[in-house]
Amino acid sequence: MPRYKLTIEYDGEAYLGWQMQAASYGQSVQGQIVSAIREFSGEDVTVAGAGRTDAGVHATGQVAHVDLVRDWPVRVVRDATNRFLKHDSIAILSAEKVPETFDARFSAIRRHYLYRIVDRRPQLALERKRAWWSPRRLDIEAMQAGANHLIGRHDFTTFRATECQAKSPVKNLDVFDITREADGSVACRLSARSFLHNQVRSMVGTLRHVGEGQWTPDDVAKALEARDRKACGTVGPAHALYLTQVDYRDEAAPLPDDPAAQDNGLTE
Amino acid sequence: MPRYKLTIEYDGEAYLGWQMQAASYGQSVQGQIVSAIREFSGEDVTVAGAGRTDAGVHATGQVAHVDLVRDWPVRVVRDATNRFLKHDSIAILSAEKVPETFDARFSAIRRHYLYRIVDRRPQLALERKRAWWSPRRLDIEAMQAGANHLIGRHDFTTFRATECQAKSPVKNLDVFDITREADGSVACRLSARSFLHNQVRSMVGTLRHVGEGQWTPDDVAKALEARDRKACGTVGPAHALYLTQVDYRDEAAPLPDDPAAQDNGLTE
Repeated sequence: MPRYKLTIEYDGEAYLGWQMQAASYGQSVQGQIVSAIREFSGEDVTVAGAGRTDAGVHATGQVAHVDLVRDWPVRVVRDATNRFLKHDSIAILSAEKVPETFDARFSAIRRHYLYRIVDRRPQLALERKRAWWSPRRLDIEAMQAGANHLIGRHDFTTFRATECQAKSPVKNLDVFDITREADGSVACRLSARSFLHNQVRSMVGTLRHVGEGQWTPDDVAKALEARDRKACGTVGPAHALYLTQVDYRDEAAPLPDDPAAQDNGLTE
Repeated sequence: MPRYKLTIEYDGEAYLGWQMQAASYGQSVQGQIVSAIREFSGEDVTVAGAGRTDAGVHATGQVAHVDLVRDWPVRVVRDATNRFLKHDSIAILSAEKVPETFDARFSAIRRHYLYRIVDRRPQLALERKRAWWSPRRLDIEAMQAGANHLIGRHDFTTFRATECQAKSPVKNLDVFDITREADGSVACRLSARSFLHNQVRSMVGTLRHVGEGQWTPDDVAKALEARDRKACGTVGPAHALYLTQVDYRDEAAPLPDDPAAQDNGLTE
């Protein structure tokens, strides 16, 4: 049975999140893709994603895998699935054949997220569901100084949703870059093998207080050290978050000896 | 009675267009702004826009003027109007005081539009209502060669909606630049004192045939020379069009001796 790796873009606004749920079958991104593949192939399939994005969260590079009985050319898998997603805000950017050992969730070695903030006095119109609005000008140097306290291996209990199901709150945060973009917006780019539930939104929400001058960068270190959800500043809205990329080893083999890999699906 | 110039951004998807209509008062951009100003000021106002954008067309730099009885500070006009537009996809980017001779429509000396096309095999997800999808790669050099035939003073009957109310189909097109942007999309930038109804969408839709290789650049010249609506290629969708800027003379005085100025409101 050939296995296909799908790279997927979606507008999170229209869906209840990535994850298919019994009660809301057709309103999840995963559910829409399962339906579209069934429509073109006649096969009942399971589509496994790299990360379970929450309602409202966008993706420009979500990854999933699916097994099909018939050995379809990759072009057909991509184009035929897209045809049945024509009225959705979901697109299969690419389909590739991968070994049976490839698992979109457990083989992933790095996930990349983008969180967008627009800091200007008037509220957002075109970007209302694409970025977080801050009516105050943000000091991104101060935000970066605060973010630097979060890079590395830490217990991220402060920045973890209370309903997070990961076994351990200890994670390695590899990248947390805050930059002023050409269009004037503030981009927060984060990379890690895996994230806790709401971790990106909790960290960015807290750093906004630093950007607005209410918190110092050192207050972020104190919040992290508190290991207490109540020490978290704010949780940023879902509609400003984008899952941009998932990396795999060339072999695309699972990593059974790394316990962190077990939490991989419990991302934003 | 002080006159204010407003610069306005909106997401056209949510509205029936700029123009307030008796039967759909609350669903036009103009109507929402009139309501918001009335809410904060208690005054019944007329808001006159530089261009009547169609349903679905976006703006990042629409301009309007409004007269208020009370002499409000410009900051209050901007922020208080925005407060009552909080649940809309409309934002007042700036408010300025202007002389009574300033007219958003008739004092305008140049209007600038952007039309966005994304040419890629998979359909659009995040940009579904922000750009036009072309599944084929576009040859932008050929499109520019076609566009060059349209620059200058011409009878644009071919590229004018049949319901267009402008007295004359003769217009000066000053700029028609087609470029490949950093994000991979194709941007068509057009500038003129004024445009005919659906002119931008008709010209861009026709040039898409050139970009896809079905038409030659010279076919665009022939279509223009035909002065026949039936010679127009295709009309591009509204949701890919943006009114980005309106220019005024420093004096901001009306130009009564220029007959072209009389058609100014009949834009996209």
